[in-house]
Amino acid sequence: MVLAQGLRVGILGATGAVGTEILAILAERSFPVAELRLLASPRSAGQTLSFGETVLPVQAVSEETLKGLDLILASAGASVSRQWLPIAIQGGAIAIDNSSAYRMEPNVPLVVPEVNPEDLKTHQGIIANPNCTTILMTVALWPLHQVRPIRRIVAATYQSASGAGAKAMQELKDQALDILKGQPPRTEVFPYPLAFNLFPHNSPLNDQGYCQEEMKMVNETRKIFHAPELRLTATCVRVPVLRAHSEALNVEFFEPFPLQEARDRLQQAAGVQFVEDWQRNYFPMPLEATGKDPVLVGRLRQDISEPNALELWLCGDQIRKGAALNAVQIAESLIAQGLL
Amino acid sequence: MVLAQGLRVGILGATGAVGTEILAILAERSFPVAELRLLASPRSAGQTLSFGETVLPVQAVSEETLKGLDLILASAGASVSRQWLPIAIQGGAIAIDNSSAYRMEPNVPLVVPEVNPEDLKTHQGIIANPNCTTILMTVALWPLHQVRPIRRIVAATYQSASGAGAKAMQELKDQALDILKGQPPRTEVFPYPLAFNLFPHNSPLNDQGYCQEEMKMVNETRKIFHAPELRLTATCVRVPVLRAHSEALNVEFFEPFPLQEARDRLQQAAGVQFVEDWQRNYFPMPLEATGKDPVLVGRLRQDISEPNALELWLCGDQIRKGAALNAVQIAESLIAQGLL
Repeated sequence: MVLAQGLRVGILGATGAVGTEILAILAERSFPVAELRLLASPRSAGQTLSFGETVLPVQAVSEETLKGLDLILASAGASVSRQWLPIAIQGGAIAIDNSSAYRMEPNVPLVVPEVNPEDLKTHQGIIANPNCTTILMTVALWPLHQVRPIRRIVAATYQSASGAGAKAMQELKDQALDILKGQPPRTEVFPYPLAFNLFPHNSPLNDQGYCQEEMKMVNETRKIFHAPELRLTATCVRVPVLRAHSEALNVEFFEPFPLQEARDRLQQAAGVQFVEDWQRNYFPMPLEATGKDPVLVGRLRQDISEPNALELWLCGDQIRKGAALNAVQIAESLIAQGLL
Repeated sequence: MVLAQGLRVGILGATGAVGTEILAILAERSFPVAELRLLASPRSAGQTLSFGETVLPVQAVSEETLKGLDLILASAGASVSRQWLPIAIQGGAIAIDNSSAYRMEPNVPLVVPEVNPEDLKTHQGIIANPNCTTILMTVALWPLHQVRPIRRIVAATYQSASGAGAKAMQELKDQALDILKGQPPRTEVFPYPLAFNLFPHNSPLNDQGYCQEEMKMVNETRKIFHAPELRLTATCVRVPVLRAHSEALNVEFFEPFPLQEARDRLQQAAGVQFVEDWQRNYFPMPLEATGKDPVLVGRLRQDISEPNALELWLCGDQIRKGAALNAVQIAESLIAQGLL
């Protein structure tokens, strides 16, 4: 239960692309904050960040600085989460973790608030925030899957540089300038040049040739939808876009899904902004999804190759709904359900 | 039959992105040219272009300048082809047309030389060069389809600016610089900014919501493969890349296609360069396909969602194999078959 004075909130990984966005979103949404601690590696300690009108110091994460928190929002990578979140929850905090560390653990809810908020009820201290591509896809497909279950998804993604962090976004801009000047593009964060180029997602590949990013889409979607048999294949691709992901989704149902019914469902769906102007050939675009809360969904079509399938297209801000916003919405849902 | 002194060749649309590439490829491949006429709209007449060591004037296309040609390679758009190619072939020339004007006419062969060179035998003067996305896809899939027929393809494309011409490539570069300078990007050729953005292909949409580019993939592939029942759905997307297209292809066969057999077929396939280094996460990329003749194919995987399907990834130079090179290879195939 939130006391009158609000919650004692920590942000772990406060200086990163997602951490700074969490900070901005907490202020924007007037999240009930009594005390806010910005935590990061000792390297980042001593910096300051603004929270509304207040300027706050960044502190090194430690047993001391984790003490007495009600809520910790973590986005500092899997190994940092594994090290510090068990300590934070022992001290009584609830942790919402943006890393992949705990997502597939059976006793950890993996939650998209528009899809499976009721899964929060069984939490044991840690709640996992899904991967960006999964969040965007599940927000768009849940309103359809609820009515007529999905049999199989063939996904192709168009993923922005932000998924690899703030340094990767700067690298994309630097590379673009290099190429425009006729110089070879510098690569440091990414293995290959991304400006005016693209490449299959550079996460580790498994024995079947699927990269981690693709398997996150497969396994996390099954867990969030409580659909362990759902068939899903994906091709994840990095494209020279700064901070919004796009996805082309071919979605096959067990029976035909009337187009108008699907359109109605999506137009009414929570977290979805339906964007279609067929006259102007105007559909979701990453530049327009940037900085927006909803997932932009459109270009809904009956698949001409398969009577039971629909095609759709979406774009969503990778840092907001793909990460920071979803984490804050999980906290809001915990409060609304009396779990925090 | 080619005379000792070679052929009298015209290039219609000689000053465009594809026209200048045809000129370069004819020189590179020592195409048997006795006389070369560079033809374009009156607006472009008077310019000069280099052909090997020779500098040639660009002439306005007219009944006069079309007279006495053996071969005309046209890449000036559908309406220009419809106006001038009938006149050229009445004068005895064979026309290879890069526009969409004649592609779906039943008496016009639509040819990818690695796939269906025998279709050239029935030509009646005009031969159509397929659309870029179709050429790249058919080169990659024919070696598989020949052994075990394809049932259905789900395609997602990542298409470069060059598909909209040389001005579009410049616009992408100008927009990137605008954005890096913090200025709003100028749009003239494309309806929306392409730099650091992407959007569904901006060709006209049909009643089913498929754009022209997507229907070209569907209809042209069926014609080239002589597979009128082939199921194909596509999502065509423009991405901020200069001149090579990429495609993510989910390919379902009527029966399982053993992965090693598919890999062997692709490694031996004409027009394909198989590019895979799983250790380095290194697969085809548009920057590396740029300026290359073969279609780079790789990331071949068994689809984990469907036992009869494979996933593969390709990149190909849109101006070369996607247009100019394929047209010149058609001419070479005509010569090799004694048809020219």
